[in-house]
Amino acid sequence: MAGNSFGQLFRITTFGESHGEAIGVIIDGCPAGLDVDLDYIQGELDKRKPGQSKITTQRKESDVVKILSGTFEGKTTGTPIAMIIPNEDQRSKDYGHNVDVFRPSHADYTYATKYGIRDHRGGGRSSARETAARVAAGALAKLLLKTQGIEVLAHVSSVGTINAPNISIESAAEFLETREQNIVRCADPATAEEMIEFIDSIRKQGDTVGGKVSCHITGAPVGLGDPVFDKLHADLGKAMLSINAVHGFEFGSGFSGSEMRGSEHNDIFMKNADGSVTTRTNFSGGIQGGISNGMPIDFKVAFKPVATIMHNQQTIDGEGNAAEITGKGRHDPCVVPRAVPIVEAMAALVLADHWLRNKVSKL
Amino acid sequence: MAGNSFGQLFRITTFGESHGEAIGVIIDGCPAGLDVDLDYIQGELDKRKPGQSKITTQRKESDVVKILSGTFEGKTTGTPIAMIIPNEDQRSKDYGHNVDVFRPSHADYTYATKYGIRDHRGGGRSSARETAARVAAGALAKLLLKTQGIEVLAHVSSVGTINAPNISIESAAEFLETREQNIVRCADPATAEEMIEFIDSIRKQGDTVGGKVSCHITGAPVGLGDPVFDKLHADLGKAMLSINAVHGFEFGSGFSGSEMRGSEHNDIFMKNADGSVTTRTNFSGGIQGGISNGMPIDFKVAFKPVATIMHNQQTIDGEGNAAEITGKGRHDPCVVPRAVPIVEAMAALVLADHWLRNKVSKL
Amino acid sequence: MAGNSFGQLFRITTFGESHGEAIGVIIDGCPAGLDVDLDYIQGELDKRKPGQSKITTQRKESDVVKILSGTFEGKTTGTPIAMIIPNEDQRSKDYGHNVDVFRPSHADYTYATKYGIRDHRGGGRSSARETAARVAAGALAKLLLKTQGIEVLAHVSSVGTINAPNISIESAAEFLETREQNIVRCADPATAEEMIEFIDSIRKQGDTVGGKVSCHITGAPVGLGDPVFDKLHADLGKAMLSINAVHGFEFGSGFSGSEMRGSEHNDIFMKNADGSVTTRTNFSGGIQGGISNGMPIDFKVAFKPVATIMHNQQTIDGEGNAAEITGKGRHDPCVVPRAVPIVEAMAALVLADHWLRNKVSKL
Amino acid sequence: MAGNSFGQLFRITTFGESHGEAIGVIIDGCPAGLDVDLDYIQGELDKRKPGQSKITTQRKESDVVKILSGTFEGKTTGTPIAMIIPNEDQRSKDYGHNVDVFRPSHADYTYATKYGIRDHRGGGRSSARETAARVAAGALAKLLLKTQGIEVLAHVSSVGTINAPNISIESAAEFLETREQNIVRCADPATAEEMIEFIDSIRKQGDTVGGKVSCHITGAPVGLGDPVFDKLHADLGKAMLSINAVHGFEFGSGFSGSEMRGSEHNDIFMKNADGSVTTRTNFSGGIQGGISNGMPIDFKVAFKPVATIMHNQQTIDGEGNAAEITGKGRHDPCVVPRAVPIVEAMAALVLADHWLRNKVSKL
Repeated sequence: MAGNSFGQLFRITTFGESHGEAIGVIIDGCPAGLDVDLDYIQGELDKRKPGQSKITTQRKESDVVKILSGTFEGKTTGTPIAMIIPNEDQRSKDYGHNVDVFRPSHADYTYATKYGIRDHRGGGRSSARETAARVAAGALAKLLLKTQGIEVLAHVSSVGTINAPNISIESAAEFLETREQNIVRCADPATAEEMIEFIDSIRKQGDTVGGKVSCHITGAPVGLGDPVFDKLHADLGKAMLSINAVHGFEFGSGFSGSEMRGSEHNDIFMKNADGSVTTRTNFSGGIQGGISNGMPIDFKVAFKPVATIMHNQQTIDGEGNAAEITGKGRHDPCVVPRAVPIVEAMAALVLADHWLRNKVSKL
Repeated sequence: MAGNSFGQLFRITTFGESHGEAIGVIIDGCPAGLDVDLDYIQGELDKRKPGQSKITTQRKESDVVKILSGTFEGKTTGTPIAMIIPNEDQRSKDYGHNVDVFRPSHADYTYATKYGIRDHRGGGRSSARETAARVAAGALAKLLLKTQGIEVLAHVSSVGTINAPNISIESAAEFLETREQNIVRCADPATAEEMIEFIDSIRKQGDTVGGKVSCHITGAPVGLGDPVFDKLHADLGKAMLSINAVHGFEFGSGFSGSEMRGSEHNDIFMKNADGSVTTRTNFSGGIQGGISNGMPIDFKVAFKPVATIMHNQQTIDGEGNAAEITGKGRHDPCVVPRAVPIVEAMAALVLADHWLRNKVSKL
Repeated sequence: MAGNSFGQLFRITTFGESHGEAIGVIIDGCPAGLDVDLDYIQGELDKRKPGQSKITTQRKESDVVKILSGTFEGKTTGTPIAMIIPNEDQRSKDYGHNVDVFRPSHADYTYATKYGIRDHRGGGRSSARETAARVAAGALAKLLLKTQGIEVLAHVSSVGTINAPNISIESAAEFLETREQNIVRCADPATAEEMIEFIDSIRKQGDTVGGKVSCHITGAPVGLGDPVFDKLHADLGKAMLSINAVHGFEFGSGFSGSEMRGSEHNDIFMKNADGSVTTRTNFSGGIQGGISNGMPIDFKVAFKPVATIMHNQQTIDGEGNAAEITGKGRHDPCVVPRAVPIVEAMAALVLADHWLRNKVSKL
Repeated sequence: MAGNSFGQLFRITTFGESHGEAIGVIIDGCPAGLDVDLDYIQGELDKRKPGQSKITTQRKESDVVKILSGTFEGKTTGTPIAMIIPNEDQRSKDYGHNVDVFRPSHADYTYATKYGIRDHRGGGRSSARETAARVAAGALAKLLLKTQGIEVLAHVSSVGTINAPNISIESAAEFLETREQNIVRCADPATAEEMIEFIDSIRKQGDTVGGKVSCHITGAPVGLGDPVFDKLHADLGKAMLSINAVHGFEFGSGFSGSEMRGSEHNDIFMKNADGSVTTRTNFSGGIQGGISNGMPIDFKVAFKPVATIMHNQQTIDGEGNAAEITGKGRHDPCVVPRAVPIVEAMAALVLADHWLRNKVSKL
């Protein structure tokens, strides 16, 4: 109710602030009998952690996850799975200069006004550090989906105005291998190089830039998603928009679909030689009437530029006096390379939830 | 859990199919003591109803709403408010020719596969008729918001590639008056004319076209929205994406924000002479860290073209055999003029819910 | 959130007041493909309706239920099922004399204070009339359970200090036949006669009396119920305590179990010749650790005497002035005969919900 | 959904097993600005912890609670509060002899069947150890209630057939002082002595015995509780029935009320000299129509005898073979002295939740 839980049947609750002792997550509703591959979960966290390359924040946190409950001899038991990630680098002194001012386009002002309390140690609960807990939970959801042949595959498709061409995915393994060969996590190597160069130049200017992440889900059966409010794309949209810095979401034909005609947009059904049903085109993005239709599910997420820049900016303090602020912390020039595992995690949580929900849709 | 409810504290559950006896909605959680203006609610429904102009479907339904419970002497009592709208025009014969085929880009195939049952009378539960129940509930939410000085104002900002210029809203009354003077519900009269002409030409071709609705919320206080999953824009996004035919959502700078730099995107705080705090620009769209910051809240919603067209289309039937289909029903060439009250209704439901939720955020 | 919904996966929301136009219920989450036997549902309502015998209220309402949505050709479609029961006998004049006074041990005072509004037409939402909606929904839940061989069987086990002996149930059909042969709905014919005579004498005195309903659920598989808060008996307890006039709930050994020793209370497991596992005794009431163990589930519910009596009583009015009140309406001398179908309905709703929930407990 | 959360607005989720690394709880929805007295919270845990006297289990666990998130400078911030209690004494060897057999009247059999996995280290998630997390969360709820003058006061009112006389509570402080002066936590010193002697004799016999806890809530305003399913006593009932070993719940007149007549049971309203409204009697237990009426709220909870006894018992193993079992662990001869803080905690959670919920019931 207070906004810290997500999902209905595969339900997570995250806790923790950027500068507290630890962050963590409770997963309630994971079915019993799932093999828990802790190395895989840690691997996903490593893709999100700070300090991994020259184009991410230089802050260092090892982000080691620990499971406190809910597993026995390597398998889930059906009871809540608690995972915890200690905060190592709680250097709140970096933030000391911000104690009394509201950082522009951060959540300082809205949190202070809403709660009547100012936790001035960095972003507190509004910090993107919270997303580490989501990545841990999402990794478990991915393990569940993998038992069903469902793969969630995201990559950076644009940085600023640099756009990658459309990617066709032959296999999940190949896609991931290509993507992980560059530090920007773009599945097109040539564009990746261009992006990295651009982010590096932005970083040197003390500025930041936005970007987009595209996500493709393969292997989803027909039937995931619930009418009428919990349409699969509505839940995916909420999941994505709940990620820090996201300002837009589209699936299938998306915004450009609003410029098309019905006669070109309709996806024609075909029965294939092997008996499967597919559509000739996929402007529906794998979802019709809110329910997956067996085609690849695809959507795109837009991230605004990170608000913390290394420039002087005008602002006000807690009393409303004019003030000035200069970014001094260690922040990301562009958030999308580290956002890829977060997008995948949130998508996996939505899919796992609806996969369970679909089990009770008919007698 | 089965997707037919929306909201936490101001919570609605809708029911009913396009060709059943009635559709309706239960509103649970509306505070006691609210004046219920039934004429206002009916007026909102009239903006959504079919047959209202030459550019909407010619189907005729009077869509008269009736309140069954939850009010006493014109005021809400704190108990569930049931509203019902009888289905008058249940001419399922119009749909008879579709009994056995899956209409392209409709929900026929996914529903039939998910539930193992084919209700072939039009869209059944997936029909946009369900949104009438949302409009009725949303009208009540708007009445609640009006007691707090909050206004939800949407209009058609594009049809196909025709885009209205940005609108500046001086007063809610004036905005609504201008918008209602044209049948496409665009607040820019010149663009409206162009849009109407275009939709009419599309209609004559038996085709359909997509469009966009822009929404502006004025008067919202600081503090609405809950971290971390129930960010105000995440809930707005889910609300919009749950509307039939929506393929995209963006707020504030939206997708174009992903191409900007932090130094241009950051909204600088100012304390005004009257003591209020505003920002110089509003790329945040009135929401920071998921919580309203007192600036106007604005977002945009992209609708795909209506799937039912008056052309012959190839498809398959329930057994997977190749089949052909021709649209014969009475459908909209462009859905956005009738979508305006739906967008407003869903936005009002989100705001009313978070307005209540914010009441328990601090001691 | 406002208390008008019950259940998680098989979820109902009721609406309506005693003197409004109609009461009703939405069932969301009933799986698709269930045969809906409307006669059965109406038959359950008939057991609850007023005016059925000399020992119930003489108020007459035919309580005819109508399904508005969610079924197609006699089967559930997976969409919300709306049922509505018009209020025929809205004679609020009977209540005119109570307009300004708070009836003792009714909900008038608490509702008026909580909501700041006084709906003086009978009990409004607090009236037991609301339970008709529960019986309709519960009947559908029973139909679902019957497909699994689960039967929910209740009867009146005491009225005042008259107690029926323990009943052993051979078959559901036989139990129900015996129970329905007397107007008090006690499965022991001899005790039934005594109870009827006693209630009749109480009625002639213008007084009321309490009683108990015992419920037995047969055929439930092992595994229903969720640790730790949603234990099967905890959900059954809440369901029962939510029924008007209920003041106590116990299952298995119940209150008397608190006086026993572990060595006598423990239920010893046995493997039977047919491979089934049972326990020698059933002090656990069919539930261990909150989860059904395959033995019959049994519990007992205590109802206080109806508050409306035909005597003069002192009270206060809305301004706190001393006042006097005399019951004039048409009320029940003892509520338990009509409570039997309500107890069964609520139990069936709990079981149906947990039957669905158990489907997602393991991979 | 999987049963590990409780409450709507003041919502807790517990995690952890008896023999895992830690147990804990997330509290989501506690308003910002509450002073967190960690000593008070620890003090409540100390009343529940094992090894505190000769009539409790001799197992030793220090049960030290640690707050990981949600507070800043001693106050709640409105974000989730995570509390963790490490498991010190994980001596699962004590349970080694039970690896393959189902302990009578424990949850071994039902868990193993439901989840398909047997965590044989003691009770796992079904162990009463989980209630420590509830006590920690409940202590915070009590701190919230104390700011409103609401006190939750429980004591042991019977052990086996030994019953304490009715207690009249003058002040919370005095009640607690008297209660804490004896190890059985009965507020009547003479009865306490008798109870202690009896439990000690039971312990020496290697047997166990049940008992009852009575709870009184003072200072609650009119208006807590929601019709129709979330009646205050229905939520209290569910809360109590979710505690391990509870087999019955009654409030106000309870089971004995079912033997009374309306003319003796009705609570007559009075307006007092100071303007307050009270009732002459309190058979309603402070709750009318599911909503608190300003009188003391009182209820009683029945606990069955602990299932682990030091006798040989017959049972079956995982394959259904006949087996024998002897209790060897360190268990309680009677659970009620340690159950008192658990009953208080769960009651406080219900009251805190409804106190918040009542804030949005009217405009």
